[in-house]
Amino acid sequence: MDIGQRLEQELEQAVARAAGPDCPPILAEALRYAVFPGGARIRPRLALAVAHACGNENPLAALSAASAIEILHCASLVHDDLPCFDNAALRRGKPSVHCAFGERTAVLAGDALIVLAFEWLAVRLALSPDRLAPLTRIVASCVGGPSGICAGQAWECESQIDIVKYQRAKTGALFAACTMAGAAAAGYEPSQWQSLGFAIGEAFQVADDLRDVAGSAEELGKPVHQDETHHRPNFVAELGFDGAMAHFDGLLADAMAAIPACPGAEQLGLQITAVSRSLVTGLSSRTVAA
Amino acid sequence: MDIGQRLEQELEQAVARAAGPDCPPILAEALRYAVFPGGARIRPRLALAVAHACGNENPLAALSAASAIEILHCASLVHDDLPCFDNAALRRGKPSVHCAFGERTAVLAGDALIVLAFEWLAVRLALSPDRLAPLTRIVASCVGGPSGICAGQAWECESQIDIVKYQRAKTGALFAACTMAGAAAAGYEPSQWQSLGFAIGEAFQVADDLRDVAGSAEELGKPVHQDETHHRPNFVAELGFDGAMAHFDGLLADAMAAIPACPGAEQLGLQITAVSRSLVTGLSSRTVAA
Repeated sequence: MDIGQRLEQELEQAVARAAGPDCPPILAEALRYAVFPGGARIRPRLALAVAHACGNENPLAALSAASAIEILHCASLVHDDLPCFDNAALRRGKPSVHCAFGERTAVLAGDALIVLAFEWLAVRLALSPDRLAPLTRIVASCVGGPSGICAGQAWECESQIDIVKYQRAKTGALFAACTMAGAAAAGYEPSQWQSLGFAIGEAFQVADDLRDVAGSAEELGKPVHQDETHHRPNFVAELGFDGAMAHFDGLLADAMAAIPACPGAEQLGLQITAVSRSLVTGLSSRTVAA
Repeated sequence: MDIGQRLEQELEQAVARAAGPDCPPILAEALRYAVFPGGARIRPRLALAVAHACGNENPLAALSAASAIEILHCASLVHDDLPCFDNAALRRGKPSVHCAFGERTAVLAGDALIVLAFEWLAVRLALSPDRLAPLTRIVASCVGGPSGICAGQAWECESQIDIVKYQRAKTGALFAACTMAGAAAAGYEPSQWQSLGFAIGEAFQVADDLRDVAGSAEELGKPVHQDETHHRPNFVAELGFDGAMAHFDGLLADAMAAIPACPGAEQLGLQITAVSRSLVTGLSSRTVAA
């Protein structure tokens, strides 16, 4: 079984726990709908790649942390799409959760997924108690306040945005959770892996900006031109298409330089480069005008 | 320092973590506003009373679990008051979070509080790793799906409500978390403490129904007649005032009978009775008509 299949199997087991037989049927359906079918699963794959590069001493710890991070990512998408935020009708090529199941169920599904992420860590790490506290802390700090995803979204409610804190919290933090959790699961000191996560997160943010401006809704499975619509900062608007692409290349080089010493450092660098490049493949300044 | 002060101090420390210096200021204010000043803190006090009755072998585990439960209760109130649910303007005698800070901040504050509850457990129990997994699982199972608070709320979205599952999940589950977490923190087998929590939760639900019908918004600090407004089941509507009060007495007797053997069983019974009775003090069939 390849790692992608193993990850889907783990996510299936986790969601089956929250959406068990006693669960109200609509909520159970919404929980499954929010997690399956997934996107590229970039974040959990990054966590697993880091754990692998570090020797993957405790594969179950790595897999459960990767799954918790993906579940939290899915929760953030459900709440992010709500009418009071992006009011997005489309996600992963199908109606967003609140469009398919109503706003109340979308709020509850997001809440239940947040709970599930932490529950799943505790279920899977009952026999590795020394790993549970650090992994829970890493994952929690990257999604809550003061500088996780919730804080990132909350900067959008402020009249003055601290742009560095905003982007780090909204996008970078979860990538930092991936690199730090992958390393911690394998017994490595997580703090040394934070800057790699932030660098990948920044590159991903630029790629996301490029896709929002130069991609198509069909390819992305979600609406484009969202930054313009919601008056959010966008690197293409700021630097132009070629400038943003050059910035992306620079950030990717920063990421390569930030990979800490570990047995699989070289292969990890190749994997990160391949996945990052795939995000901007096919985009060109020509498609901006389209 | 009495236990109430110690609990407030613990909650202050927990919220200070999520609302730290890097936190967007409005979110930080909303997080504090959602937790302070508190209500009667009935749930965390119950968890601490159970831990005390069981010998309180690990006071920090009991206190952090009690705080996590109260933080999750506060989160549930913030989301419960949202326009898409109860659309309640008043909570604990002041504007609800979405009325004071806007809907987006209310969604994010609830999310960040859910994350904080689990983060705080991991922070406080880093040196008691054997307690962390069971306490996280107890608390998570009582707030998420399939049968925690999220599931309880989600039953309201179904065309056919399973009334027993609904009330157990919406109200009983968090009380079961209190009794089970209090016992587990003190090293007792938590499953034996679940039925006590459910019995208290049922009694509390009846008391809440009595207050909704026969109380006043000034005394309760929140709107009354909410069940009628939202077409929710209410024991007074079903059994009449005297019938509901008799049902309350019966449930309280059930709770007394459900207290497992432990050194402080007798005092625990007295405490539960005193707190439960205080909820319905001053209510009478006369005030129903008012």
